[in-house]
Amino acid sequence: MQLGVIGLGRMGRIVVDRTLDAGHDVVAFDLSAEATAAAAEAGADPADSVEDLCERLGTKKRIWLMVPAGDAVDATLADLEPHLEREDVVVDGGNSHFEASVRRAEGTDAAYLDCGTSGGPASAEEGFSLMVGGPEWAYEELVPVLDAVATGPAGHDRMGESGAGHYVKMVHNGVEYALMQAYGEGFELLAEGRYDLEMESIARTWNNGAVIRSWLLELCEEAFREEGNDLGDVADHVAGGSTGTWTVEEALEQEVPVPLIYGALAERFDSRNEGRFSRRLANRLRYGFGRHEVKRRADGE
Amino acid sequence: MQLGVIGLGRMGRIVVDRTLDAGHDVVAFDLSAEATAAAAEAGADPADSVEDLCERLGTKKRIWLMVPAGDAVDATLADLEPHLEREDVVVDGGNSHFEASVRRAEGTDAAYLDCGTSGGPASAEEGFSLMVGGPEWAYEELVPVLDAVATGPAGHDRMGESGAGHYVKMVHNGVEYALMQAYGEGFELLAEGRYDLEMESIARTWNNGAVIRSWLLELCEEAFREEGNDLGDVADHVAGGSTGTWTVEEALEQEVPVPLIYGALAERFDSRNEGRFSRRLANRLRYGFGRHEVKRRADGE
Amino acid sequence: MQLGVIGLGRMGRIVVDRTLDAGHDVVAFDLSAEATAAAAEAGADPADSVEDLCERLGTKKRIWLMVPAGDAVDATLADLEPHLEREDVVVDGGNSHFEASVRRAEGTDAAYLDCGTSGGPASAEEGFSLMVGGPEWAYEELVPVLDAVATGPAGHDRMGESGAGHYVKMVHNGVEYALMQAYGEGFELLAEGRYDLEMESIARTWNNGAVIRSWLLELCEEAFREEGNDLGDVADHVAGGSTGTWTVEEALEQEVPVPLIYGALAERFDSRNEGRFSRRLANRLRYGFGRHEVKRRADGE
Amino acid sequence: MQLGVIGLGRMGRIVVDRTLDAGHDVVAFDLSAEATAAAAEAGADPADSVEDLCERLGTKKRIWLMVPAGDAVDATLADLEPHLEREDVVVDGGNSHFEASVRRAEGTDAAYLDCGTSGGPASAEEGFSLMVGGPEWAYEELVPVLDAVATGPAGHDRMGESGAGHYVKMVHNGVEYALMQAYGEGFELLAEGRYDLEMESIARTWNNGAVIRSWLLELCEEAFREEGNDLGDVADHVAGGSTGTWTVEEALEQEVPVPLIYGALAERFDSRNEGRFSRRLANRLRYGFGRHEVKRRADGE
Repeated sequence: MQLGVIGLGRMGRIVVDRTLDAGHDVVAFDLSAEATAAAAEAGADPADSVEDLCERLGTKKRIWLMVPAGDAVDATLADLEPHLEREDVVVDGGNSHFEASVRRAEGTDAAYLDCGTSGGPASAEEGFSLMVGGPEWAYEELVPVLDAVATGPAGHDRMGESGAGHYVKMVHNGVEYALMQAYGEGFELLAEGRYDLEMESIARTWNNGAVIRSWLLELCEEAFREEGNDLGDVADHVAGGSTGTWTVEEALEQEVPVPLIYGALAERFDSRNEGRFSRRLANRLRYGFGRHEVKRRADGE
Repeated sequence: MQLGVIGLGRMGRIVVDRTLDAGHDVVAFDLSAEATAAAAEAGADPADSVEDLCERLGTKKRIWLMVPAGDAVDATLADLEPHLEREDVVVDGGNSHFEASVRRAEGTDAAYLDCGTSGGPASAEEGFSLMVGGPEWAYEELVPVLDAVATGPAGHDRMGESGAGHYVKMVHNGVEYALMQAYGEGFELLAEGRYDLEMESIARTWNNGAVIRSWLLELCEEAFREEGNDLGDVADHVAGGSTGTWTVEEALEQEVPVPLIYGALAERFDSRNEGRFSRRLANRLRYGFGRHEVKRRADGE
Repeated sequence: MQLGVIGLGRMGRIVVDRTLDAGHDVVAFDLSAEATAAAAEAGADPADSVEDLCERLGTKKRIWLMVPAGDAVDATLADLEPHLEREDVVVDGGNSHFEASVRRAEGTDAAYLDCGTSGGPASAEEGFSLMVGGPEWAYEELVPVLDAVATGPAGHDRMGESGAGHYVKMVHNGVEYALMQAYGEGFELLAEGRYDLEMESIARTWNNGAVIRSWLLELCEEAFREEGNDLGDVADHVAGGSTGTWTVEEALEQEVPVPLIYGALAERFDSRNEGRFSRRLANRLRYGFGRHEVKRRADGE
Repeated sequence: MQLGVIGLGRMGRIVVDRTLDAGHDVVAFDLSAEATAAAAEAGADPADSVEDLCERLGTKKRIWLMVPAGDAVDATLADLEPHLEREDVVVDGGNSHFEASVRRAEGTDAAYLDCGTSGGPASAEEGFSLMVGGPEWAYEELVPVLDAVATGPAGHDRMGESGAGHYVKMVHNGVEYALMQAYGEGFELLAEGRYDLEMESIARTWNNGAVIRSWLLELCEEAFREEGNDLGDVADHVAGGSTGTWTVEEALEQEVPVPLIYGALAERFDSRNEGRFSRRLANRLRYGFGRHEVKRRADGE
C-alpha cells in the first residue's frame, strides 16, 4: 500500500524505512528539505509540501504524522484539512495528550487514529509497540503498515475508540518512570551499600534468568558497560516528565492511587530543583525546638 | 562432576534435574523419603541421611542446600559439620539473610558459598540467575554446576566475598516488589479509567517492542489470559515480604532513600490490614474540625 | 459597618453571629426562608431575595458569600451582578478554586475578594483564620468585619492579588491532609504495636508540651475520648479530597515535589476503593514466577 | 523531695532548674566540673562523682539521668549499680531505644523508668511532655518531680511497662519528622508557586485559627521572621534521623504502613546525598531507549 509520512526525525525515518523494507510505497515530507532528501535516497517519493504530498497520494490517503506533540500536530492538520475526505486516514504517531487526540478526531472529516508509539530510536531494528485508538475500519485499513512498523502483528492492536491509543501510551510512560526509578533505587543501594560490587556483572546476571529481567535492565547493563561502574560523569538531572504528569493528573481524576508513579515523577522534579525549600525549613525547625545547629550555605552546602 | 543436593522441593528438584541433564552425577537427599525416591527415579543417587550423602560424596565434597531459609539451614549445617573438611564446598541456594550467610561462612571449615537464586519454579527450563558470594576458588570449582543450573555462563557470577550473593538477591527482590507494584498501578489506572480496555491485549502489545517489556509483563499477560480482564476472583491480599523488609532495613542503615521499594512493601502490608487505624482517625478528625459526617461501620463499611 | 451575608449554613451563620457580636449591622439572605428567619432572630435584617438584600444595603455594598464552592457561587454572582457598582465589595468566603476566583474577579465591576476560611464550624467561638486575595483597598475596607470573623487582627491578612487567598487556602488544605495522615500513622503504630497503650493519655501528654502539639492533636485527643481507645465503629473511609487534588495538580504544574501531601491524598482514594487491582495483580504475579498460592476471594478475602 | 540529676547539658539543666523552682532539693553531677558548678550556683547541691552523688542522696534514691543516649547511659548505670537498692528509682530521660531501656530495666535491682522527653530546650519555661514506662509504684513516687519538669500533671503519664515511655517517644519523633516535611511541602509550593507571597504572614494567619495551627507552625513563623522570606542562607541539609529510623524499623516489624513517616525520613537522607545514583541512572536510561541527550557533570551540574 501507499503511505504518506510527515515528519522525518529519528522516529519518522524509522517509520519510512520499515514501511519501505516491507515493500510498501512511501511519500515523505519534512519541513527540512534535507530530511526529505535523505528519505528520498532511502527510496521514498519526496514531497515538497503537505499539499504536494496529498496530491501524490491521490484518493484514500493514508498519512502518518510523526511530528512533535502539541502545536506542530495542529499546524500540520490545518495544512492537511483542505485535502482530506471521509475515506482518508490520518495517524498521529507522536506523544499527544489523549484529550487533544479526541478533539482532533472530532475536528476532521477523515478517520483519525491516535497511535501511541513505544520503543524509541533504539528499537529501529526490532520494531515498535503501537497502541492505536480510533475507528475500527481505519485501524484494519492500516494493518499492513502497522505490521511493518511494529514488531509484527503482536506489536500493535486497537485499544478502543478515539484517544484510547494515546491514553494507553500515557499510562505506559507513567509505568516506565516507576520502573526506571525502581531499578535506580536497587542499583543505588548496591553502589552505596556494604559490598564492593560490579554493577554491569549484576545487571548481566539478572538479565539471564532473574525475575526482574527486562529491556530496561538490558539498558542498565549497557549504561554500566559504557559509563563505568560509578556512571562516570553522568549528572543527577532527569529531564522530561510531561507524560508522567498526565498520568498522575488522570489518576487524580479517576481517584486511583499511583504512589510509585508519583514518587518517580517527584524524583525527576527533585533532581532539577536546587536547595529544596522544604528541607531548608526542616533544617531550621530543628533549631527551633531542639537548638540543633543550623547548617548554613556558607558551610559549603 | 559430582554434586550432593539436600532439599528436593520444587527448587531443589530443578537443581537436580538440570545438573543431571548436563551430565553430572547427583547424590540427593530430602527429609521426605518420597522426594528422595522421586529424585532417584530421575537419575540421582539417593541418600537416606545427611551422613549417608556425605559418605557417598567422598572427599572434595560439593554440596548444594536448597532448604527453607532460617532454622532449616542451620540444622542441616549442624548435621553436615562433622563430615566437612577445608577442601569441601557448601552452597546455600536459598533466600537466606546475607548476615546469616556471613555468620555461617565463619562457622564452618568448608568453603561456604551464598547463592541468591532467581527465576522461580517457572524458570525450570530456561535456568536460573545465580548471584554467588564467597571464596573465589570455591566459586570457580562450582562453575560446571552453575553453568548447568543457570541459563548458562551469563546467568551466574561471583558478586564478591561472603554474603555478597544473598545481598544482591535481597536487593533484587526489593526491586521486584517495586516493579510489580509499578505495573499494578498502570493496569489499575487502565482498568478503572475512562476507556473500556482489554488488559491482555495491552500487555501483549507492550511486550512486543515497548520500553517497559519484561518477563514480569509477560506474566501479567498470562495472568489476564488465565484470570480474565478483571482478574476474576483473585483477592486483594499480597503475601510475603521478608526480603523486601530486609532491603528497606539495609537501606535505612545505609541512609539510601528507596521510596518506591518502601511504597511497594507498604502496599503489601496494607493489603493484609483490615480497617486501617490511620484512616479511621482521619475520618473522625474531619468531623472534629469540619463537622463532616463520620462514616460508621454500621453504614456498611 | 453594614455587611450583607448570602448563605446561612453553619459557616455563614458564624459570620453573621460574629459580625453582629462585634456591633456591626448584618443583612442576611439564604435560599432557605427558615435559615433567613433564624438569622433574623439572632439580630440580622432578613432579606427575601438577592435583589432585596442589595436594596437594603444601598450604595457601597459589602457582601459576603458563604455558599458551596462551584455553580452556587456563579449563580449568586449572576443574581448580584445587575446591582453591583465599582465601589462595591464582594467576598467569597468559600472553598473555591483560585482560578475560578481570578475569573470571577475579572468578570465583575465590583471589587472581588477571595477569602480562604479555615477553622471550620468547631472554631465558632475562637474565630477563623482568613486568607484574603484581591484589591488592597477592598481588603482595607473590610478589616472591621475581618477582625470580627477572624480571631482578631492576627487571624487575617491580604495574601496578594486576586486568587492568592484561595491559593493559600488550597495549600493549607493539602498540608492538613498530610498532618492528619502523619498523626494517623503514629497512632496506628501505637495501636498495633507491642505495648498496650492508652491513646487518649498519649494525645493528652503530647498536647502538653511535646513538639508535635497542635489543634489537630487536640482533636485526636477528643476523638479517643469520645470514640474509645480503638475508635469504636468509626469506618475506614475518608471522604473529601478536592482541595488536596488541586494542591497536587498545582504542584505538578510548578514541578514541586509534594510526596507527603500526595501520599495522604492517595490514602483517601485507597480508603474508598474496594479490592485494589494493583495488589490483586501482584498476588497473581507471585504465582506466575514463584508458584506461590493465589489467595482467592472465595477464601474469605 | 530529693532528686539526683546526672548530666547537666541543656536538657539536664532544665530538669534541675524546674525541680529547684518547685521547691525540691537537687543533688547534681556532670563529668564537666564547670557544668556542676553552674548547677550549684543555681541552688543545687554539687556532687563530684556518681559515688558522691549516691552518698548525698542516702536511701530511697531518686536519680534522673539526662546523658546522651547510647554508651553514656550504660557507663553511668555501671557507676551507679554498686549503690543501688530495690527501693531506689532511676529515670532515663534521654532518647534511648526502647529495647535498650527494657534491657537496662532487667539489669538493675532498682526500679527503672524510661522517660521520653519532648519539648526541647525551647520549652524550658513551659515544661516538657514526659512519656514514662516502668513500674507503677516508681512512677507514682516520682510524680512531684514529674509535675515540676512537665507542663504540670497533664504533661506526663505512665504509658505502660518498661520501654513503653521510650516507645511512645520514638513514635512521637517519627510523627514529628512527617509534620515538619508536610509544612515544608506546603511552604515550598507557596514559595515556588505563581503568587508572590509573604511566608511569615501566612504562618501567622494560619496560627490564628486555622485547622493546621500548631507549635511547629509557630516555629515556622519564627523561622521566616528571623531568616527572611526565602530562608536566607539556611542550607538544604537535614541532620539527625535515628529515632525516625527506629520508628520505621518497628513499623516494618509490626507490618504497619507508615508511608509519610518513611517519606520524611527519606527526604533527610536525600538532603545529605550528593548526586543520587538512582537519578543518574535514569538520566542515562533515557538516552538508552530514547536517545535523549545525557546531562553531564561537566555541563555544570
